Amino acid sequence: MGHGGGGALSAELVENVFLPAFGGRTLAALGDSAALSLGGARLAFSTDSFVVRPLFFPGGCIGDLAVNGTVNDLAMSGARAAYLSCAFILEEGVETSVVGRIAGALGDAARAAGVEVVTGDTKVVESGRGDGVYVNTAGIGLIPPGVDIRPQRARPGDVVLLSGEIGLHGVAVMSMRQGLEFGVEIESDCAALGGLVDAMLAVTPDLHVLRDPTRGGLAAALNEIAAAAGAGVVVDERAVPVPPQVASACAVLGLDPMYVANEGKLVAFVPREHADGVLAAMRAHPLGAAAAVIGACVPDHPGMVVARTAFGGTRVVDLPLGEQLPRIC
Amino acid sequence: MGHGGGGALSAELVENVFLPAFGGRTLAALGDSAALSLGGARLAFSTDSFVVRPLFFPGGCIGDLAVNGTVNDLAMSGARAAYLSCAFILEEGVETSVVGRIAGALGDAARAAGVEVVTGDTKVVESGRGDGVYVNTAGIGLIPPGVDIRPQRARPGDVVLLSGEIGLHGVAVMSMRQGLEFGVEIESDCAALGGLVDAMLAVTPDLHVLRDPTRGGLAAALNEIAAAAGAGVVVDERAVPVPPQVASACAVLGLDPMYVANEGKLVAFVPREHADGVLAAMRAHPLGAAAAVIGACVPDHPGMVVARTAFGGTRVVDLPLGEQLPRIC
Repeated sequence: MGHGGGGALSAELVENVFLPAFGGRTLAALGDSAALSLGGARLAFSTDSFVVRPLFFPGGCIGDLAVNGTVNDLAMSGARAAYLSCAFILEEGVETSVVGRIAGALGDAARAAGVEVVTGDTKVVESGRGDGVYVNTAGIGLIPPGVDIRPQRARPGDVVLLSGEIGLHGVAVMSMRQGLEFGVEIESDCAALGGLVDAMLAVTPDLHVLRDPTRGGLAAALNEIAAAAGAGVVVDERAVPVPPQVASACAVLGLDPMYVANEGKLVAFVPREHADGVLAAMRAHPLGAAAAVIGACVPDHPGMVVARTAFGGTRVVDLPLGEQLPRIC
Repeated sequence: MGHGGGGALSAELVENVFLPAFGGRTLAALGDSAALSLGGARLAFSTDSFVVRPLFFPGGCIGDLAVNGTVNDLAMSGARAAYLSCAFILEEGVETSVVGRIAGALGDAARAAGVEVVTGDTKVVESGRGDGVYVNTAGIGLIPPGVDIRPQRARPGDVVLLSGEIGLHGVAVMSMRQGLEFGVEIESDCAALGGLVDAMLAVTPDLHVLRDPTRGGLAAALNEIAAAAGAGVVVDERAVPVPPQVASACAVLGLDPMYVANEGKLVAFVPREHADGVLAAMRAHPLGAAAAVIGACVPDHPGMVVARTAFGGTRVVDLPLGEQLPRIC
């Protein structure tokens, strides 16, 4: 299971199996989406399969997750999603009404994100060979001129911004799955981030890195950026907004919020001179109201993420090995 | 199972569930790929999930199928595939060596087709929730200027061309699955058709319709074209090349070769004045050596496909209801 968790085992599979087989410099850049040139246009292209369990959870379902996941991967290269493909693998016996509810949520999420579903596919597998519904989406978007956002561009001196509270998606799905109640219902933060990124780009096209901390959470996102850029990252743990209900749920479930998946948050590496302006623009957007400076990119310990703890110490924030929370997206 | 078979039940699911949910004129055009405009470029975009069983079969495996299936969908709008995404859903416990062999075949097929895998995703599901390996690909290609190939453009008077022998892919997979031996090994015709389409377009950009007869076979492809164009199609059964080993296997398996999936063939609707030239170009290409005129588009019985049988009679060739051969691609 760990090979799909977005941690070190996932990275190993990509590096040892997929990269040698597929080759190519674009894939090797390992961004959330690929930046391409085609017919004179600069395109971003990305894909994700969604295998979340259960299919419906507080705050969303596999349908809107499938739209927002891919729209956000495109947004992380500064691209506004334009077109989506959508492919269903249905398990024999799944109710048409369930497929209909998922398709409805998917269509609504696409309209909300301003993206059009233009092509699709449906396959059916025997009972016991699937799990109700799996959905794949791929997306294409245009990268605006002058924008070059990728993990390799993190630079010592960059300010690290986070768009809001972490842990909501993972905890919402996990509590649903385990039948846990925490007094207050925890809802997934599943949302499309294209509008927030547009607001940030209006301040400066020179954002260095954007990443949505999904599988593996904020810890995995920061580690991937540190590794890609060969730079160090320092995070101030007290500055990372963790909602109290996420903190309690994580305590019960034995999880660290830094490793829990989000589906409507982003982390940004921004040149110091633009940090205040970008932060203000984020806070003025509904999806960035709780945005905060959470750390900085530093010349020390290249490739490594270090957290300043609430008690004044420091600890290394590792890339998770396998999967804390399987099938979260 | 029938809802994934490419027949009438599939069409019903698309029309009653997906189209109302997703909306949009592009999706409603229901081509093998969507024709889009983005940043001044004319793009084709398509996706397919692959759930073929077994993963390896005579003449190919799920890896090259995943490349050729999507490359061919793009080629059916006249586009040369440029970029592919590739997403794996792995079942817990599948051997890394199996994933590696599939990835290797996928990479080789991509290089052979001149397309680059630029972005990907891997998910892992629990044992019993998948079937070894499912693969999704999505592809983007450029549509050359002046090319407008889609099912709606079939016109009475068009000549119907077929690029070669039918039934090889479906029978190869099915015989492998059922452990049947037919004396001669039957190999899948799995191949990328971009080069063949380029050769046809070099004769005239005014090809009206291209379709690769995959799920549901030649019968489904012709029915979809007849329905989309509101035109009739007449096929001369004796002119459709059926290899003797496919005919014998179909007799044993109780199948009609007209309904069996192909993965390296195309059917073309071509204006009469260009038919000879296009046929010659097809025959000069290795993947079109056995190309033949198999029928015509007619003003009679709009939306219906009629076959002239070997005995001089006629019969209606229906859209298959469900799935003759489940999980063939």
